[in-house]
Amino acid sequence: MASSVDTYIESHQDRFLEELKSFLAIPSVSTLPQHKPDIERASAFVAERLRAAGIENVERIPTDGHPLVYGEWMKAPGKPTVLCYGHYDVQPPDPLEEWVSPPFEPLIRNGNIYARGAADDKGQMYIHVKAAETLLAAQGRLPVNVKFLIEGEEEVGGKAVDRYVAEHPTKLQSDVALVSDTEMFAPGLPTLCVGLRGLVYTEVVATGAAQDLHSGIFGGAAPNPLLGLARILSQLISPDYRIQVPGFYDDVEAPSPEEKASWARLPFDENEFLREKVGSTALVGEEGFAVLERLWVRPTLEVHGIVGGFMGEGAKTVIPAKASAKVSMRLVPRQDPQEILAAFQKEVKRLTPRGLRVEVKTLSTAEPVLMSPSHPSIQAAARALSDTFRQPTVYVRGGGSIPIVARIQESLGIPVALMGFGLPDDRLHSPNEKFHLPNFFAGIRAVTRFWENLAEGR
Amino acid sequence: MASSVDTYIESHQDRFLEELKSFLAIPSVSTLPQHKPDIERASAFVAERLRAAGIENVERIPTDGHPLVYGEWMKAPGKPTVLCYGHYDVQPPDPLEEWVSPPFEPLIRNGNIYARGAADDKGQMYIHVKAAETLLAAQGRLPVNVKFLIEGEEEVGGKAVDRYVAEHPTKLQSDVALVSDTEMFAPGLPTLCVGLRGLVYTEVVATGAAQDLHSGIFGGAAPNPLLGLARILSQLISPDYRIQVPGFYDDVEAPSPEEKASWARLPFDENEFLREKVGSTALVGEEGFAVLERLWVRPTLEVHGIVGGFMGEGAKTVIPAKASAKVSMRLVPRQDPQEILAAFQKEVKRLTPRGLRVEVKTLSTAEPVLMSPSHPSIQAAARALSDTFRQPTVYVRGGGSIPIVARIQESLGIPVALMGFGLPDDRLHSPNEKFHLPNFFAGIRAVTRFWENLAEGR
Repeated sequence: MASSVDTYIESHQDRFLEELKSFLAIPSVSTLPQHKPDIERASAFVAERLRAAGIENVERIPTDGHPLVYGEWMKAPGKPTVLCYGHYDVQPPDPLEEWVSPPFEPLIRNGNIYARGAADDKGQMYIHVKAAETLLAAQGRLPVNVKFLIEGEEEVGGKAVDRYVAEHPTKLQSDVALVSDTEMFAPGLPTLCVGLRGLVYTEVVATGAAQDLHSGIFGGAAPNPLLGLARILSQLISPDYRIQVPGFYDDVEAPSPEEKASWARLPFDENEFLREKVGSTALVGEEGFAVLERLWVRPTLEVHGIVGGFMGEGAKTVIPAKASAKVSMRLVPRQDPQEILAAFQKEVKRLTPRGLRVEVKTLSTAEPVLMSPSHPSIQAAARALSDTFRQPTVYVRGGGSIPIVARIQESLGIPVALMGFGLPDDRLHSPNEKFHLPNFFAGIRAVTRFWENLAEGR
Repeated sequence: MASSVDTYIESHQDRFLEELKSFLAIPSVSTLPQHKPDIERASAFVAERLRAAGIENVERIPTDGHPLVYGEWMKAPGKPTVLCYGHYDVQPPDPLEEWVSPPFEPLIRNGNIYARGAADDKGQMYIHVKAAETLLAAQGRLPVNVKFLIEGEEEVGGKAVDRYVAEHPTKLQSDVALVSDTEMFAPGLPTLCVGLRGLVYTEVVATGAAQDLHSGIFGGAAPNPLLGLARILSQLISPDYRIQVPGFYDDVEAPSPEEKASWARLPFDENEFLREKVGSTALVGEEGFAVLERLWVRPTLEVHGIVGGFMGEGAKTVIPAKASAKVSMRLVPRQDPQEILAAFQKEVKRLTPRGLRVEVKTLSTAEPVLMSPSHPSIQAAARALSDTFRQPTVYVRGGGSIPIVARIQESLGIPVALMGFGLPDDRLHSPNEKFHLPNFFAGIRAVTRFWENLAEGR
């Protein structure tokens, strides 16, 4: 027998989708200044949809960066309060030429919606909005109190929301936070993420000569910042993928034997992962660790881009005066981003070749996160997922970083239920990002169940 | 007593300058496809000015790339023939924001003309055109036969002119070639360049995953092409600047003790070079070699740009599927570009980290060049310079590469007089490139003297 919730979701399916399309059509790329007006539009859209759903006291909160959107429904006295977090900003869409359909013209193909931000995180955060609308429309009330806090800077470090949570613990006081910005381990497999890697993201800037030089006239005597960066980078991590920053591994906490054993039972095939998800000639990384361990509980160092010199077509014989590399490290529980950053800066300085000056700029940091699967709120989320997807929920970690999760834990002292509805092939941050539409609708159902479970203390 | 040549130059000074300004205003950047129409305009300008000077049989020769301009004056029977080479194309002007005045709006400040291509090579090649005009107008004839061959691809490898010279040795047959694309060792010091480094310019393309990946989700197991390139590059050249490609130094020919001794007498101060020309915290390069030796007779390896991943503002946590590095090697006499290229490709392949595929594309090559200072034509050039600048001419080498010089030597079997009128602070290939105007006019005088000396066998 279909509940009133199921009936409401089914009969408003088309409108929910049209709304999601409108949301995804806004190119709210937070890292690019030219998209500032789109950021405004996206935040206005979120505020307007919250109001339309019946959420009260909705406000757009100006910040030094992009606006926050807040709203609440507090009419369930004596019941728990859930803080729903999401972000309306997206990654840049480049390389544009690799998209089958344009990144900001959402298109449905084979049950998926394709657009930048479809899964990360517009589609997933919109689940929370539609869950609230559904319960308020179908039942006239929510089973719990709900607060929404939606930010527009997640992809650029989330400074504004971080400060806001730190400075407004009373306003945001809740019993559990709900974040849908992770993925299911496999299609149809309900998944709760109980740990996340942290992040230190830097820009390493190397300066040599006072101006760009001709490599014919000066080559052999002038320092080359690109070569210097290459030398530094290749010494920061060994060929067998051990990070060479002194003390880097000192605080790394290994997962329990039980947790490791549960991962071994997950439907995961390393060869299939290589073939289907990565597509390189081989997987790489630390010897002695399974791939899932490398992705979830081992720290890493990556280079994301190197800027400087001639980057056009053809040949230019320049020795650039300056070059910089975007370098990040993923951190695992018990590693402290500030300590790692300091050790990294010291090591980069030590490795700086003669003739160059090198500066390390910090673009963002995030604490690693670890939650207890036995916490009652996490159990309520697990049951909601199991009931919706009709399979036992699995507990995994995530390799990515959601800095707000650590902030919520620290400033509000509450657990965070990471109920993710993305799929492993959603291509976050890559061309042809998508979101699986059945998960959008199942997600709405699961969130309503989560709230009901919390209200009923089960 | 002023000669008719001096008088003509002096009375047409302003017009010569206006013509040069018009020439420099054309942004004939050969490496960027969007400047194709400017390349057309620049070649048309050269052809038209040659005709106006009285040069005959002027033609624009279409090629697979940018057009060549040819012209001749062959009315001095029994006299030697001089092949005048130059190029009308220029380097890209970026970084644009560092130019004091725009690169294609030539401006005269303090006796210099500032523009991209002012010294390299538009200003210098225009000296030849004005020398011909001056003699034809002032004396009704040239003392020697002259052929002009001007190309538009010097900055991108000069494929078309290379093939043209190789395929037309009879049409281009001459006794000596004249190239003004080098510099004087110091202001006022007449300089002949008798050796040039060669070049192998490559693009090293590394491919990892099938698509860009999120470093949170895939970092620790997916190969990173940027990190792979950094590792390869830093192994190709040691921290003490020895190139690690096997066999790389096998054919390097050291300069004679006499040549080395003559360089030690040149007005060159390594500290001043560091302070005034380079501006880094220190000079670098091979121990045991003076700076001039490192620049002229030691081979080098440089990185000019690394493309791939996120190169915008802010942070993006991407592991790029693909990245490439522009890498060149400067070669010295007796090193063979093809052999070096093959050894380089082999070594890059050997150094390729697991999980990556790497391809080396060749963008251009140039043979190193060495000329005998005692050849009569070189002596005629040296005397013309000494007489014009009233100081003994010094013999130097050049660290840059002018591939056409090797081609002329090989296909036409004639010496090349490298009479350069640039100055060491002309900032070739860099922002605020300039040409010293007194050298423009002295250059016209020196070239007319060179032709007269050749005609009179002195």
